[in-house]
Amino acid sequence: MTRVIPWPALDGIAYGGDYNPEQWDRAVWDEDVRLMREAGVNLVSVGIFSWALIERTEGEFDFAWLDDLLDLLHANGIHVDLGTPTASPPAWFFHAHPEARVVTRDGRTMGFGSRGMASHSSPAYRAAIARIADALAARYATHPAVVLWHVHNEYGVPVGEDYSPASVAAFRTWLGERYGSLDALNTAWGTAFWGQHYTDWEHVGAPADAPSVVNPAQRLDFARFTDAQLRACFRIERDAIRAHASQPITTNFMANQSWTTDLWAWGREVDIVSDDHYLWAADPEGHVGLAIAADLSRSVGGGAPWILMEHSTSAVNWQPRNVAKRPGEMARNSITHLARGADAILFFQWRASRSGAEKFHSAMLPHAGTASRVWREVVDLGDALGRLSEVRGARVQAEAAVLWDFESFWAQDLEWRPSVEVTHQAQVRAYYEQLWRDGVTADFALPGHDLSGYRLVVAPAQYLLTSADAANLAAYVAGGGTLVVSFFSGIVDENDAVHAGGYLAPLAEVLGVRVEEFLPLREGEAVTLERADGSRLTARSWTEDLLVCGAETVARYADGPAAGRAAITRHRQGSGSGWYVSTSLDADGLAATLAAAYVDAGIAASSAPAGCEVVVRRGAAHDFTFVVNHRGDTVELELDGTELLTGAATDGSVTVPAGGIAVVRTDRAEEATR
Amino acid sequence: MTRVIPWPALDGIAYGGDYNPEQWDRAVWDEDVRLMREAGVNLVSVGIFSWALIERTEGEFDFAWLDDLLDLLHANGIHVDLGTPTASPPAWFFHAHPEARVVTRDGRTMGFGSRGMASHSSPAYRAAIARIADALAARYATHPAVVLWHVHNEYGVPVGEDYSPASVAAFRTWLGERYGSLDALNTAWGTAFWGQHYTDWEHVGAPADAPSVVNPAQRLDFARFTDAQLRACFRIERDAIRAHASQPITTNFMANQSWTTDLWAWGREVDIVSDDHYLWAADPEGHVGLAIAADLSRSVGGGAPWILMEHSTSAVNWQPRNVAKRPGEMARNSITHLARGADAILFFQWRASRSGAEKFHSAMLPHAGTASRVWREVVDLGDALGRLSEVRGARVQAEAAVLWDFESFWAQDLEWRPSVEVTHQAQVRAYYEQLWRDGVTADFALPGHDLSGYRLVVAPAQYLLTSADAANLAAYVAGGGTLVVSFFSGIVDENDAVHAGGYLAPLAEVLGVRVEEFLPLREGEAVTLERADGSRLTARSWTEDLLVCGAETVARYADGPAAGRAAITRHRQGSGSGWYVSTSLDADGLAATLAAAYVDAGIAASSAPAGCEVVVRRGAAHDFTFVVNHRGDTVELELDGTELLTGAATDGSVTVPAGGIAVVRTDRAEEATR
Amino acid sequence: MTRVIPWPALDGIAYGGDYNPEQWDRAVWDEDVRLMREAGVNLVSVGIFSWALIERTEGEFDFAWLDDLLDLLHANGIHVDLGTPTASPPAWFFHAHPEARVVTRDGRTMGFGSRGMASHSSPAYRAAIARIADALAARYATHPAVVLWHVHNEYGVPVGEDYSPASVAAFRTWLGERYGSLDALNTAWGTAFWGQHYTDWEHVGAPADAPSVVNPAQRLDFARFTDAQLRACFRIERDAIRAHASQPITTNFMANQSWTTDLWAWGREVDIVSDDHYLWAADPEGHVGLAIAADLSRSVGGGAPWILMEHSTSAVNWQPRNVAKRPGEMARNSITHLARGADAILFFQWRASRSGAEKFHSAMLPHAGTASRVWREVVDLGDALGRLSEVRGARVQAEAAVLWDFESFWAQDLEWRPSVEVTHQAQVRAYYEQLWRDGVTADFALPGHDLSGYRLVVAPAQYLLTSADAANLAAYVAGGGTLVVSFFSGIVDENDAVHAGGYLAPLAEVLGVRVEEFLPLREGEAVTLERADGSRLTARSWTEDLLVCGAETVARYADGPAAGRAAITRHRQGSGSGWYVSTSLDADGLAATLAAAYVDAGIAASSAPAGCEVVVRRGAAHDFTFVVNHRGDTVELELDGTELLTGAATDGSVTVPAGGIAVVRTDRAEEATR
Repeated sequence: MTRVIPWPALDGIAYGGDYNPEQWDRAVWDEDVRLMREAGVNLVSVGIFSWALIERTEGEFDFAWLDDLLDLLHANGIHVDLGTPTASPPAWFFHAHPEARVVTRDGRTMGFGSRGMASHSSPAYRAAIARIADALAARYATHPAVVLWHVHNEYGVPVGEDYSPASVAAFRTWLGERYGSLDALNTAWGTAFWGQHYTDWEHVGAPADAPSVVNPAQRLDFARFTDAQLRACFRIERDAIRAHASQPITTNFMANQSWTTDLWAWGREVDIVSDDHYLWAADPEGHVGLAIAADLSRSVGGGAPWILMEHSTSAVNWQPRNVAKRPGEMARNSITHLARGADAILFFQWRASRSGAEKFHSAMLPHAGTASRVWREVVDLGDALGRLSEVRGARVQAEAAVLWDFESFWAQDLEWRPSVEVTHQAQVRAYYEQLWRDGVTADFALPGHDLSGYRLVVAPAQYLLTSADAANLAAYVAGGGTLVVSFFSGIVDENDAVHAGGYLAPLAEVLGVRVEEFLPLREGEAVTLERADGSRLTARSWTEDLLVCGAETVARYADGPAAGRAAITRHRQGSGSGWYVSTSLDADGLAATLAAAYVDAGIAASSAPAGCEVVVRRGAAHDFTFVVNHRGDTVELELDGTELLTGAATDGSVTVPAGGIAVVRTDRAEEATR
Repeated sequence: MTRVIPWPALDGIAYGGDYNPEQWDRAVWDEDVRLMREAGVNLVSVGIFSWALIERTEGEFDFAWLDDLLDLLHANGIHVDLGTPTASPPAWFFHAHPEARVVTRDGRTMGFGSRGMASHSSPAYRAAIARIADALAARYATHPAVVLWHVHNEYGVPVGEDYSPASVAAFRTWLGERYGSLDALNTAWGTAFWGQHYTDWEHVGAPADAPSVVNPAQRLDFARFTDAQLRACFRIERDAIRAHASQPITTNFMANQSWTTDLWAWGREVDIVSDDHYLWAADPEGHVGLAIAADLSRSVGGGAPWILMEHSTSAVNWQPRNVAKRPGEMARNSITHLARGADAILFFQWRASRSGAEKFHSAMLPHAGTASRVWREVVDLGDALGRLSEVRGARVQAEAAVLWDFESFWAQDLEWRPSVEVTHQAQVRAYYEQLWRDGVTADFALPGHDLSGYRLVVAPAQYLLTSADAANLAAYVAGGGTLVVSFFSGIVDENDAVHAGGYLAPLAEVLGVRVEEFLPLREGEAVTLERADGSRLTARSWTEDLLVCGAETVARYADGPAAGRAAITRHRQGSGSGWYVSTSLDADGLAATLAAAYVDAGIAASSAPAGCEVVVRRGAAHDFTFVVNHRGDTVELELDGTELLTGAATDGSVTVPAGGIAVVRTDRAEEATR
Repeated sequence: MTRVIPWPALDGIAYGGDYNPEQWDRAVWDEDVRLMREAGVNLVSVGIFSWALIERTEGEFDFAWLDDLLDLLHANGIHVDLGTPTASPPAWFFHAHPEARVVTRDGRTMGFGSRGMASHSSPAYRAAIARIADALAARYATHPAVVLWHVHNEYGVPVGEDYSPASVAAFRTWLGERYGSLDALNTAWGTAFWGQHYTDWEHVGAPADAPSVVNPAQRLDFARFTDAQLRACFRIERDAIRAHASQPITTNFMANQSWTTDLWAWGREVDIVSDDHYLWAADPEGHVGLAIAADLSRSVGGGAPWILMEHSTSAVNWQPRNVAKRPGEMARNSITHLARGADAILFFQWRASRSGAEKFHSAMLPHAGTASRVWREVVDLGDALGRLSEVRGARVQAEAAVLWDFESFWAQDLEWRPSVEVTHQAQVRAYYEQLWRDGVTADFALPGHDLSGYRLVVAPAQYLLTSADAANLAAYVAGGGTLVVSFFSGIVDENDAVHAGGYLAPLAEVLGVRVEEFLPLREGEAVTLERADGSRLTARSWTEDLLVCGAETVARYADGPAAGRAAITRHRQGSGSGWYVSTSLDADGLAATLAAAYVDAGIAASSAPAGCEVVVRRGAAHDFTFVVNHRGDTVELELDGTELLTGAATDGSVTVPAGGIAVVRTDRAEEATR
């Protein structure tokens, strides 16, 4: 096996973006590399959509233009992240292999003319991706420009589930391997309900549209299968490249923007995690979503530095209203990613496309050219990143963990749940956002992970929770940890079957409470909670009839369907404690509840003013404190060290203007211990 | 022909639910029967989704587990409603007969993995249901536990219309029988419009998606055909059972929740009407919808006692927000059904499922087990029903009838009607709800029924009205009846063709009014009506230009597009009168208008306070007055007799607490006459 | 070639409607013609949906009933517009040629039973329409009743795009002719983006549903192709008729209601433009939409008189709420069409259908018969039109032109635009409506037209603008014209590729401004503009970062994302000027901005009060001033001449009551010059 280099071979923070020069005349290339140097670009991703121009007919390759391009970039000191173009097979491929086209759940066969891979289970597609990946790696494994391999693009988007015959057959095989016997499958899927018992493997199919709701365990397994097939496709390419090349290999995730792929599993397959992130313009606090994506990217990579493979200099083009970033916003976004562990800041894309579906997507070099705000900020950002080289490799310190479990999300996203208002996305966001407001840096984790290093673990809507994982959470509390569990947690096992003993049963002992019945609220309905001190909280969407069995009651329902019953409970066990929140608190309620949990956990909330984001990365010799001021006024923070963007000593405090950023190198703080 | 026993052979009111023990270990069965006895359960429905476990491959039956189950139930004194499992054919069936899969109107072939029958017109399906029904009846016709047969489940849901080739061919045959000649079909469908003339039977098809709106008469016939095919499937099973068995045979309707099946026709096919009813959580007055369903179930069975085959102990799982029932609500729901003619109160289902699509549906034995409010109320309800045995067989007394005509509904539900705001559901509900508020008990009826026994007949949006049925309504008024007709009535004949003479023409003489033109209102628009005494009413959605020809004007439009014209009219004919309401009155307007009509009809509204529901069942020797208090305070009603739940004499008046119920046995009132 | 008569051979203004007597007994026909004479009807359209009754099986014709009908009409002095029935092929056609059925973009094959042509590219369909058109023309070319031919019905509705195999093959051929080589196609479509390069013509297909957004240039070409195929179908029929007949040939457009067909191109194919127009009931200013449709119909016909082929006497049946016209409204609508150039006022349809999809559509003879408001107004309108004979042939005088470019609309309507709130329909309507309010009569024009005759040219959202067309607009300003351009103009070329130089680049010189970046607003967001005089305007949805390069700033953004930057600019060049409006102004802002532009253009806004519509047609000897009073009060206008409806001299001023109309013959005004 070839030895893998653990990070692209380049100096400092990587900076650049997707570069698709096949859209332009050769003369433009020269201007491109000149401007890249002006902007401080040191890494570009090429070839991501170039299959049709590299393999012009099946098995016939034309590398001339790509040779030329890589040589040009290398001559200009710009490193290359070389993509495999398998996210968009050529027209000839679909013409030769029409059976490889993707079929949707409602039976429509997808046409050509857009982007998106073929069926993940198509033998023809799998052979074709092995061939192109092998050919690319054989030719460029030793090209001096290439420092990184970029397999495919955004697995799972826009093609995830596939209902083609090839996929159905592969699903059957996958089920056979998972269950071994039809009896085991019948039990796992609960086929006795609604008369779905299988007596022959040939009768088992994909969960396509049916007259009513399809078996949820079948759908959950189809989600697992889809993820597994996509990963199998990745491995085919990765292994074909590795046979020739020693550079690290990645594929770009879409953390917190796509849920088709289990990023924990994918994190184990790649050499380096890379991620694409785009602000959701309709979200006034889009930077919180960004922080989630960054923390998740870091977490699925085990805390190692990661690559921000794509973000945007300004507006995107695929949202209903594509709001442009305002001055300084691109820098704030970029520095936030850096603060949360990215050592590479890249964009989609270098030069705005004149044609095609994404011509209105912003770029490093916009349609307006260099006489533009965007270009000036791109140059400035390149300069700023140059000043932050020493940050590279430093590790983010997190006191808290938020559970994030794709299998639970897949299960919870199925139909016929108790209330359409209860979504894992909203619950994770609500708890994370409160931690963010409180300046408590968090990792994401699976419920089965070793959580002992965290002072606080939050489980928002951990709907699917195996008994083993529940035991792990109980052990965490027994070991002195503080656990906060929201409603709609611990409901089903790995087969989407309600736990014996009822809702929350596997956590009943550690939390000292059981759920007798869900009491979802009507549309627009709100309830009031009263705490022991008489203070009141507001909640919406969901309440429950709780049976308290050991916990203390922190707040009761003052009205609503559960009036008089416990609403928030706390179960003290030695130095550990287990909190349960049976409703969807508004922001004030969450703030008050988590504040009390912090006390149990021994966490101090940040002293920075609201909207001033502070994150620390710990290097070998120093700490680096990143300050991103989302506020409309100037902030002054006590920090003794050197502000790296200006190079100036702080003299005890750093001043960050409205919308501004600062990075202060300080002495390492003492190691946090619990 | 075997003699049919007219009611399940058990004592008192039947109590129980669907029992699907194939989901559980044998050990659970023993606990089940023990708890059933504790709850007073005396009837359970079994086998409804068990096809795959009974006929494991085509023609190979395994009755062992069912033998065991029935013996166990019988040994514990629990009677059985034995289902045929044809609402969910096994996987092997669809694999062997892929052409039997249902095709939707937009051409999608429905997959397996959910529930829902095959094509109602598939020869393979029809053969299969005959085989399984015959096998079950042959084996269990004489089993002492079996007191009732339950064919299929909820015909029409989730599978009604089918556009498979088998269905298209059957539709052609059905049309041939209906029309005899293509000339007759061309005339009935008005094919001269839009160039749809047929010259060959082979050219006639189902009304699948087309570039624009499809011929409405064709669609109406397809709805009739769909209903007829479903009924044909029922008859196949019923007759197969009857060849062996003498117990009554039913199938569970979904009155007021599904409109695919013409329950009047179905009422003639079953031995006993049974019905499923679920509250619509978003409806704050869901108990009115419940009363409609109950009255309709009774009416389609000709007034005979019926079976509430399914309702829920608390929340369901398939609505957007599945609101749980609050303490006492399940009892109020149950007693309302009983008050309106049900002699059996059953639930879906006995024990909550751990797996599958309906695991979040409440049950008699919830996930929380017996230490739960739901279980305690289930036991209490069993006890209460035990005290009401003597009610069995008593008949509900109704002074009014509301027209309810599925053919009219089907026609009115088609596209391109004058206003999307005019729906038969809303109009029927509005008039019924006012009768409910006024304590006027109503039957439902077809316009062609003998209506002479009713003091008042209300026709809300009777869009399709044949000339013969119109004549029947006229005869009713001529005989002294009071008829209230709403707008959008008497518009088309049985072929969805506008009546010669224009809108309302067939009722013009009896009502003394004609409709010159519809004047639908814009979104959100309201109009004011002024009555002779100067009082004002508010209306929405719809107004009309009326031509008064004989009627007196009760109210005029004060504004809106018909300002100055008649809005509500009354045509006195001897002791009868015909009212016409040309707009959609709000609740106050309906109250005032019906109050005036009651005077004509000689009806006295109830003296019970608003929200206190009072219904009388008349037994052989006594009247039974049911009181259901939906109010938040205690109600006292003058009733002299014995309250059956407590067994106490009322001493002239009965006190019913907030949310409570009472059933008072009194002397029979004098026979109501008109 | 036969000489074409330029207008139907009848006296005065044509009046009548679609006549579909095949729905009725022969006895009804006699009543029909009697009532037609009573109403002053002189032209009816027949045969539009009669294919199945004329060609009963393939190649077998039955003309007897049509002979009879035409003779009857001729005998009563009623002229005939003879339709070809090709908008609704018979059942036998689709049965014999199932491959001719239309396939939707999502792959559904459309069924029979509605209306709508077959695939525009089907050889069988093309052969069939040639055959029926030839047969009809051969038989009736010399029938004395026939004065006009009416090919098909509303091309593009309900069938426009077709994805059947025949259409895909034809698209490939069409592309071959357009591009000559695959290299040219690859360049035009920008296939280098997302890896869509084609190497074989056989790989090119229609832009059917794909996993993500399909190539916009491909979709734009498919829209062009669809339009071309529909026109080819028209030409087949037109030429078949012309081989026999000398009467003018038309087909009815749906101006401002359908966007599938490029009416500029269609205007060149027909002998006379005809148009269908229906009010959109939900639009409180529906008469403005009517005026747009009328002006567009006139404009695509080069200003010649045109035929209002269909409108409605009262409500239609296909909108959500089909609001009836109120007394006088039908006359106002009709006279507005006449004022804007129509010399024929026809309706859909003569007698209301009893059956079929459109039975609730109003008619000249409604279901209520002659004892109805509608009938009385129909008779009155016939009388009024009889008094306006001398208007025939007079030409509308327009000082302004509004650009209307279907290719731009098609391109702009594709997915992934910067904001869903920016639509060409809304922008065209906003600018036109302000001109309408100001009493400035406008033509519509293409950006490549000779515009030198207009004082003012408005370009609302001219998204697609070729460099040649941009040069034409620049030349217009250089020649002294006043040009007002809204945001989202001049963005892409004919291939939907962003212009080199960036947004607005081809107009940058004439407008003295460039667009650095789009700044779409969030939902509900508004911004304020400040003008030099301190006055403030409000705008929504869209703002921009402008780079002013030569223009003067007329208004700046006072807030919002572009705060402080130019919002409205004016670039004076000699006596011409180029205005740019970078945001979506509300009505007050548009009024103020256009008022300033009128000054540049030398246009005086009308002195008539708001809501009183005044349009002038210029005849050979006189001017005819049409006054339509949409107001709720009486209006008095200074006009010296003869009011034609009353025949009275005006004595200097004409008084028009609320909702009334007047047509005043005056001396010809002096020729307007710029």
